Amino acid sequence: MANMKASPTDYTEFASIPMRSVGPLKLTGVVNADDIMVPMATYETPLWPSVARGARATAHAGGIQVTVINERMTRSLLLQAPNAAQALEVLRQVQQRQADLQQVVAQTSRFAKLLDINGEIIGNLLYLRLEFSTGDASGHNMVTQATDQLTPWLLQQYPILSYVSISGNYCTDKKVSAVNGILGRGKNIVCETWISDKLCQRFLKTTPAKLVDLHIKKDLLGSIAAGSLRSANAHVANMLLGFYLATGQDAANIVEGSQAINHAEVTPEGELYFSTSLPNLIVGSVGNGKGLDFVQRNLAQLGCTATDVEPGTNARRLAAIAGATALCGELSLLAAQTNPGELMAAHLKFER
Amino acid sequence: MANMKASPTDYTEFASIPMRSVGPLKLTGVVNADDIMVPMATYETPLWPSVARGARATAHAGGIQVTVINERMTRSLLLQAPNAAQALEVLRQVQQRQADLQQVVAQTSRFAKLLDINGEIIGNLLYLRLEFSTGDASGHNMVTQATDQLTPWLLQQYPILSYVSISGNYCTDKKVSAVNGILGRGKNIVCETWISDKLCQRFLKTTPAKLVDLHIKKDLLGSIAAGSLRSANAHVANMLLGFYLATGQDAANIVEGSQAINHAEVTPEGELYFSTSLPNLIVGSVGNGKGLDFVQRNLAQLGCTATDVEPGTNARRLAAIAGATALCGELSLLAAQTNPGELMAAHLKFER
Amino acid sequence: MANMKASPTDYTEFASIPMRSVGPLKLTGVVNADDIMVPMATYETPLWPSVARGARATAHAGGIQVTVINERMTRSLLLQAPNAAQALEVLRQVQQRQADLQQVVAQTSRFAKLLDINGEIIGNLLYLRLEFSTGDASGHNMVTQATDQLTPWLLQQYPILSYVSISGNYCTDKKVSAVNGILGRGKNIVCETWISDKLCQRFLKTTPAKLVDLHIKKDLLGSIAAGSLRSANAHVANMLLGFYLATGQDAANIVEGSQAINHAEVTPEGELYFSTSLPNLIVGSVGNGKGLDFVQRNLAQLGCTATDVEPGTNARRLAAIAGATALCGELSLLAAQTNPGELMAAHLKFER
Amino acid sequence: MANMKASPTDYTEFASIPMRSVGPLKLTGVVNADDIMVPMATYETPLWPSVARGARATAHAGGIQVTVINERMTRSLLLQAPNAAQALEVLRQVQQRQADLQQVVAQTSRFAKLLDINGEIIGNLLYLRLEFSTGDASGHNMVTQATDQLTPWLLQQYPILSYVSISGNYCTDKKVSAVNGILGRGKNIVCETWISDKLCQRFLKTTPAKLVDLHIKKDLLGSIAAGSLRSANAHVANMLLGFYLATGQDAANIVEGSQAINHAEVTPEGELYFSTSLPNLIVGSVGNGKGLDFVQRNLAQLGCTATDVEPGTNARRLAAIAGATALCGELSLLAAQTNPGELMAAHLKFER
Repeated sequence: MANMKASPTDYTEFASIPMRSVGPLKLTGVVNADDIMVPMATYETPLWPSVARGARATAHAGGIQVTVINERMTRSLLLQAPNAAQALEVLRQVQQRQADLQQVVAQTSRFAKLLDINGEIIGNLLYLRLEFSTGDASGHNMVTQATDQLTPWLLQQYPILSYVSISGNYCTDKKVSAVNGILGRGKNIVCETWISDKLCQRFLKTTPAKLVDLHIKKDLLGSIAAGSLRSANAHVANMLLGFYLATGQDAANIVEGSQAINHAEVTPEGELYFSTSLPNLIVGSVGNGKGLDFVQRNLAQLGCTATDVEPGTNARRLAAIAGATALCGELSLLAAQTNPGELMAAHLKFER
Repeated sequence: MANMKASPTDYTEFASIPMRSVGPLKLTGVVNADDIMVPMATYETPLWPSVARGARATAHAGGIQVTVINERMTRSLLLQAPNAAQALEVLRQVQQRQADLQQVVAQTSRFAKLLDINGEIIGNLLYLRLEFSTGDASGHNMVTQATDQLTPWLLQQYPILSYVSISGNYCTDKKVSAVNGILGRGKNIVCETWISDKLCQRFLKTTPAKLVDLHIKKDLLGSIAAGSLRSANAHVANMLLGFYLATGQDAANIVEGSQAINHAEVTPEGELYFSTSLPNLIVGSVGNGKGLDFVQRNLAQLGCTATDVEPGTNARRLAAIAGATALCGELSLLAAQTNPGELMAAHLKFER
Repeated sequence: MANMKASPTDYTEFASIPMRSVGPLKLTGVVNADDIMVPMATYETPLWPSVARGARATAHAGGIQVTVINERMTRSLLLQAPNAAQALEVLRQVQQRQADLQQVVAQTSRFAKLLDINGEIIGNLLYLRLEFSTGDASGHNMVTQATDQLTPWLLQQYPILSYVSISGNYCTDKKVSAVNGILGRGKNIVCETWISDKLCQRFLKTTPAKLVDLHIKKDLLGSIAAGSLRSANAHVANMLLGFYLATGQDAANIVEGSQAINHAEVTPEGELYFSTSLPNLIVGSVGNGKGLDFVQRNLAQLGCTATDVEPGTNARRLAAIAGATALCGELSLLAAQTNPGELMAAHLKFER
Repeated sequence: MANMKASPTDYTEFASIPMRSVGPLKLTGVVNADDIMVPMATYETPLWPSVARGARATAHAGGIQVTVINERMTRSLLLQAPNAAQALEVLRQVQQRQADLQQVVAQTSRFAKLLDINGEIIGNLLYLRLEFSTGDASGHNMVTQATDQLTPWLLQQYPILSYVSISGNYCTDKKVSAVNGILGRGKNIVCETWISDKLCQRFLKTTPAKLVDLHIKKDLLGSIAAGSLRSANAHVANMLLGFYLATGQDAANIVEGSQAINHAEVTPEGELYFSTSLPNLIVGSVGNGKGLDFVQRNLAQLGCTATDVEPGTNARRLAAIAGATALCGELSLLAAQTNPGELMAAHLKFER
């Protein structure tokens, strides 16, 4: 170890993170299956039984319904104009010339498709938020490459512009933001479940009313008091981290992924309605990290290596499972926190 | 794999994340060393040469000076009073009775010391933000256990209160917030370096002026435009993730850790002043995840397993190195983005 | 008009904003009265009957209980040190030398008392958040003057520092922030009321359950979705504006004042519990704007010109009434929005 | 005063706010004029000479160039579906049927034109953000009326939906948000000026370099540290308040208006480039408050009562002047803060 160097040709070791598959999860909606075993890698091993409990409760209650609201990957090229009027003129033209831009993009990838161009003008600065569909890849590199190709073309078409950055933080990558949730980055996923009072008590040791009450005072009011931003959950970051590491994702994307919003209520029928909305969940079934053996096994186990499907299908399935896993963990932790002492007792039992 | 179950007694596999040590880093301030090889585990392998470049540039320039502003771990017990006046009365009394609370806490841990109690009152809800020093542990479990012990005691001392949650999201754990940076959670670390124009050009292929200009338009204005919150950096999450996985940290804490703020300027002497402030960096040298062999080796390599030092010393050293590593990655990526095309070229070169 | 100049000696006209007193409000807690007629100046005249309805409902239900959690006014002096370590050293010393600083402050005002010093260190920048009690004044000028006096003293005591700004936006004045709510600026006020189902239906044409449901989906979830920050209300800004203009306040402070948080629930007894917490409500009964005749009349009408009371008493009373007025408007608007069509019908009826 | 009642038929008094016209302002871009005297009503009278100084400096430097990036007014109808999938189905259909919706809207106003429909789905909740052009009106009531008309139509077309609120806080009105800046509400205005070093020193008693340095450390870093949100300015709220009161605007809209972003730099030629971007500036030249005599005089003085122009022209001119006035105040205050002691001295001189 002592003689290790940073040179890129050096030998590489591995950090071996404990991993276990939990479930089975039952999903409906965009994915229909009742036998999904979800691999999660984490140093926080009490996470496994906690998610498993959520999986049991939801499976008995009919499963978790997952809806994909939207999907795209973005990069925000930052350019400078002589003044705002000229920045606006370029923005308007570029928004009209989407087909021309797509032609340039097409030279870098057969998957990257330009979906939309949003612009933000601050003074004479033009933040060009380029939005792409990227097939089964999470798409970070694909959009960087596409933007890299577009940059000289734009500078040549609009010589009044000067280059500032390939990424102006209006994308925004691996940083908290409001823009990702509002304009979209990654998959926008909503996961929902309906659990009867009886099943709540049996599997979650709580009632719909108690869980909803806690959700309001903790997820909503507590997050607001903490000065949070478009985030109202208990610990979505934990589930995403475990899932991301096990499936070869760039886990730094849990930063934006964790900006998830729970919504729960007691239905007129007395059931618990519980949902976790993840407006910017970034996952891919191909790309960096996916070549490792255990990652391939895990992706196959999740049914996300199909070859006879449209591009994007595997990644959407992966996102749906990631979201449902997050919901299971949310449900279980919130349930535990309705009962004083239960959280710590569970930790003490399962750690070690 | 197919017959894997979620039961806690099951066999555990491992997710093996590629890991390499980069450096050497030169640190001054709270840590004085010039041979620190930093292990980083990541699927995004171009991160290694990028951080290594930042390490080279800063080492040649005299190193990275690290200052620890503050440290603490928190848990926010959520209680409900009949009304705000009674919530306030309890808050005032509890803040006066810190010694009594410490006595209760002392029964759960010899390391947890109650430092301060902040309160937030929303209607009749009392968010009691309990702040502890936790020695070399990051302290999540320590503060949960302490709060768990305090809960029945508080409910008995103040029978007008009712329990809502052991954690009311005003802590706040693994979620974006403003409270963590303002009131403190984890280590508050500032990392600074001064690099001459000549060394900037030699190692970073840019000038102080170009890098500062980009920093302002991307880190500051771009983040503001994106609706970010107490966050102004390029990709701190990447470095923290790699470092956290290699050193057995709960990497879900990169959510708050990534809320880091760069500040850069050209000094009157024409040097680049570059700093990365990480107001809520959560790390520990003991606790969950630290028992694994490679983690122990990495902690030892970093000099964070000393046994003849005050509690907290190893964790502070770890935090200093984490912060300095983040600065190296920031410096290198920002430098690359000042030159169109460089970022993608580096990615294509270093990825396989 | 054409010959009007900007010179300070010029003739001054007046903008005459329609004003009416609404009520009577019934208050308990820090203020005990049931005959408070609240003056409000606004171009949005439907606001008057709306607030009046909230006043009627709460008065019949036993009134609005107001609790003052905290009070202070702040200014954040911005200084630069050679590096973070020296900034920290100064911060620690200054926090220890509060009595010395108070001596300097005492030369500028007999009311300004230094309560606390918070510091934020970003790189080599030191944001010194000086917190004062300011008697019955809102205190903007008092703290500016105090900080102005402290600046040369600090620069002389700590010659390593250089001056950047008398106000580094960490105060923060008339701008949205998280720091004002968390560390305090102005009065931190909680207003609460308990209204039976019967009175809800009689005065507000809705039920506790319907109002709470709307509050959760609009104030809490809607604000979170909108990317709001420590703000969860319907239109607190409206009531504060009307009240501020009528009582000679600097109405630009509605920016931070509007970051108010409603919390509502149906009690076990079936009552509506409704609260509006205003963590940074800035008001004063003396100072700029208070010399105008109609302002004096309004302050007298509100009982905020008492001369035989401790400094600060009048301002606290004023804050309590402002907060209660905000609650009345919140209650009435939310009630109206539970019934489709009611909001617009009311507008059409009362405008003109 | 004592016999005043809240009944809508009662006599109304007036709050008389000191008002003065400052200038002349010189504008280019969307407005071309060099003799604009801007009326401002405020209790903070030092604001007048401060804005006047900014006006002098910019007029001598060639004026303030104003660009209108966008304009619209919004209302977010909140509906509930049985689940997210059905909410999504409705959203997609509604976005396709914009012409049908416009037909319904057309019955309420000849000015309101539906521009776009944004949707946010949280669990089973559908926040339908309806965006309209509203001619010369700020449009609050116009969009409420249009949405009021659309609600029964939507509930009839999509019987699976149930009504929650005419306004789900995703509009968002008079509350801090990220959505208004990103998706637009009111006018999105950029104001820019270029001032030579000589004129800076002559009129602003500072240099371009000093002002830019302060801007970075206060507007940008200070706001970030304060936990601000899409806001980076010194006191935009002050100028907007004064302008809004003088021109009959609903001044509660300064809450979102104050989320303005300054961007300044020293140009290669050594000039000061200074800009204030106001992404959600809400103003109208017709509607509530505009019937008062002094308001009509002020609107006429500003050239915003033209009758031979396209609808929207007067309101855009008004917005341009409001933004330019804000820039003048920003420039002057920032300049003052570069010199220790100047701010307080100016206050003491101009206040009475």
